[in-house]
Amino acid sequence: MPTVKLVAEDDPNLQVQRVFTDIKATKKIDRVPNIWRALATHPEHLELCWTRLKAIMRPGKVDLLTKEIIALAVSVTNSCRYCINSHTAATQKLGLDDEMLGEVLAVVGLFNQMNKLADAYQIEPDILPEAARTP
Amino acid sequence: MPTVKLVAEDDPNLQVQRVFTDIKATKKIDRVPNIWRALATHPEHLELCWTRLKAIMRPGKVDLLTKEIIALAVSVTNSCRYCINSHTAATQKLGLDDEMLGEVLAVVGLFNQMNKLADAYQIEPDILPEAARTP
Amino acid sequence: MPTVKLVAEDDPNLQVQRVFTDIKATKKIDRVPNIWRALATHPEHLELCWTRLKAIMRPGKVDLLTKEIIALAVSVTNSCRYCINSHTAATQKLGLDDEMLGEVLAVVGLFNQMNKLADAYQIEPDILPEAARTP
Amino acid sequence: MPTVKLVAEDDPNLQVQRVFTDIKATKKIDRVPNIWRALATHPEHLELCWTRLKAIMRPGKVDLLTKEIIALAVSVTNSCRYCINSHTAATQKLGLDDEMLGEVLAVVGLFNQMNKLADAYQIEPDILPEAARTP
Amino acid sequence: MPTVKLVAEDDPNLQVQRVFTDIKATKKIDRVPNIWRALATHPEHLELCWTRLKAIMRPGKVDLLTKEIIALAVSVTNSCRYCINSHTAATQKLGLDDEMLGEVLAVVGLFNQMNKLADAYQIEPDILPEAARTP
Amino acid sequence: MPTVKLVAEDDPNLQVQRVFTDIKATKKIDRVPNIWRALATHPEHLELCWTRLKAIMRPGKVDLLTKEIIALAVSVTNSCRYCINSHTAATQKLGLDDEMLGEVLAVVGLFNQMNKLADAYQIEPDILPEAARTP
Repeated sequence: MPTVKLVAEDDPNLQVQRVFTDIKATKKIDRVPNIWRALATHPEHLELCWTRLKAIMRPGKVDLLTKEIIALAVSVTNSCRYCINSHTAATQKLGLDDEMLGEVLAVVGLFNQMNKLADAYQIEPDILPEAARTP
Repeated sequence: MPTVKLVAEDDPNLQVQRVFTDIKATKKIDRVPNIWRALATHPEHLELCWTRLKAIMRPGKVDLLTKEIIALAVSVTNSCRYCINSHTAATQKLGLDDEMLGEVLAVVGLFNQMNKLADAYQIEPDILPEAARTP
Repeated sequence: MPTVKLVAEDDPNLQVQRVFTDIKATKKIDRVPNIWRALATHPEHLELCWTRLKAIMRPGKVDLLTKEIIALAVSVTNSCRYCINSHTAATQKLGLDDEMLGEVLAVVGLFNQMNKLADAYQIEPDILPEAARTP
Repeated sequence: MPTVKLVAEDDPNLQVQRVFTDIKATKKIDRVPNIWRALATHPEHLELCWTRLKAIMRPGKVDLLTKEIIALAVSVTNSCRYCINSHTAATQKLGLDDEMLGEVLAVVGLFNQMNKLADAYQIEPDILPEAARTP
Repeated sequence: MPTVKLVAEDDPNLQVQRVFTDIKATKKIDRVPNIWRALATHPEHLELCWTRLKAIMRPGKVDLLTKEIIALAVSVTNSCRYCINSHTAATQKLGLDDEMLGEVLAVVGLFNQMNKLADAYQIEPDILPEAARTP
Repeated sequence: MPTVKLVAEDDPNLQVQRVFTDIKATKKIDRVPNIWRALATHPEHLELCWTRLKAIMRPGKVDLLTKEIIALAVSVTNSCRYCINSHTAATQKLGLDDEMLGEVLAVVGLFNQMNKLADAYQIEPDILPEAARTP
């Protein structure tokens, strides 16, 4: 259970109201998710976090489904229960079926394994990224 | 520096030769990357790892660029130096320019932040994945 | 609760049936554990994961109890609730009593502490592994 | 490079001298490893860490090689460069050859993968440890 | 639920009794917290852990509230549910209100994000700590 | 070495120039640190990150030294080499001597150990934060 009292959706603080309204309008939902209600205990931080997420989670050169897949991959690697739930749901809402979810998670599992093996053997990088290859 | 002597590319072990040949053919490269040379100190494990990676890193319902992006997201979250280098290079080879790389890493940074805030407040999941919503 | 509907033990998919049967025969159990039922939502990935685990978790030069202890140490370090439960049970089934479990966890706690202190001070390695010491 | 000036092996501080002498005598070495020289910048903490490690890393019901294997498994999972080097060397000194090292690391890689898959699907524990099974 | 049977507060083991009494006296509480009851399944390890925590969590040049804030920051970064709960409570008992908690967690979230971005770009350190700057 | 070409301090992009100028003015330095030069490969993300850090790393109810200590604790727990270096230097610049650094790191090491032991035994929270105790 939460370590703070979640802020009510109709809390009178003006900054909180502005952000809650924007969250619901942007995400096209009618309930404010728990994470935002907890962050609202510090209205300035709530606003900082929301404006950041809103700016980053817009379709860009990288589309929105790919961004949500990345969010899920990070959340799994970090074992974040709240985020695994919310991003699995978000990817499913954007069209990811069980088979595609399985493909995504197969890659996540594979590289959690490969990362540790690479660290274990303390090998040196061999494939150089672009920055090093261009003169 | 590596904690084991990397296996030479022309090592006579038959299992190692079979895997090294397949790696170079599949990835269309002429050098065996260091990670595989380290894993080759245990030929059975080398083969297990390679066959697994080969099966998973094929284009499926999820395309190859997305899979490499996931690999990069996991490697960054795990701070794996070898893998960050190799998967940054892989995504760049598949067309990711600096702007797209910035978009991808923005998402990775954002959710490393959001994951910890969700854990910090110990909030309960609110958005239920599909499994819970279907009767 | 799971993010996907766990696959039923009598699911008609042939690949799933083959793997479920092998899991129960190999582990000498009559229920398929939840992790395998979740992975079965992608039958090819289920088979990849099971064949890998089966090959690695056989007694080798390193015996099975030691392998299960390693599994537990990794699961604790990763804070994986499902795996901490299942590998604590597995080690207990193989003979680890509360005193031995305490010894194992003491080592796990100790090195989670020592790892971070080594990183904190950014010290250089001094004890070189074999690869570096042999001419 | 280190973030503090490593304490010289002949530092006059009495607490530091007492601990340095004990480290060398216990480990049968003639150089004080870097980690202890860094910790010596806070002599009380140095002594706390050393007495703890000395007590835990004694052969008990769990033998010393198994304890060093656990230390390595934790260090790999935490990607601690200093500790991966020192514990790989320690296990090799106690008899672990390349094949056994490969077996140990195969288990470490496997469970870094399985842990994340278990978290990804948010499955509930099924195998109950001893505490829950005894009436 | 715990993986071991928690040791009863009136357990007859003398080492356990000595430590339990000291915990309650030092923390000015009348119940032994669960973590200590679990550690008590290995009385020697219980005593090692308690004496270490008692020595470190005393006010020093760094005051106790700051130490508890550090404990909370570490526990959030490690997503440790038990510790997030207990250290949030501890900081609140020492005077941290919701606004201050928000400030602390904002820093924790920020650096979980910045750490990964720094690793992602594999940049070299530029600001050198004192040890490197003094001749 | 970096995976992208670090943006030059005199890069003509207006958004980059605005942010670089503000970084140097705010931090009272005359060189732009590497992390910001890497982030500048995506000017919008650079600005998002900088404005966030600037807002959070101001003295508030929690003073600046405490905030830098938290940053260091997180960076150590995440083993981020770049950040460990930069935040150790920052805390030293704000007055933290070797003894105080030792105290801070002792707490970081202690709770990396205690977190994993708490997870290992799967104990239930007992000390409830304020939210749960107030009616």
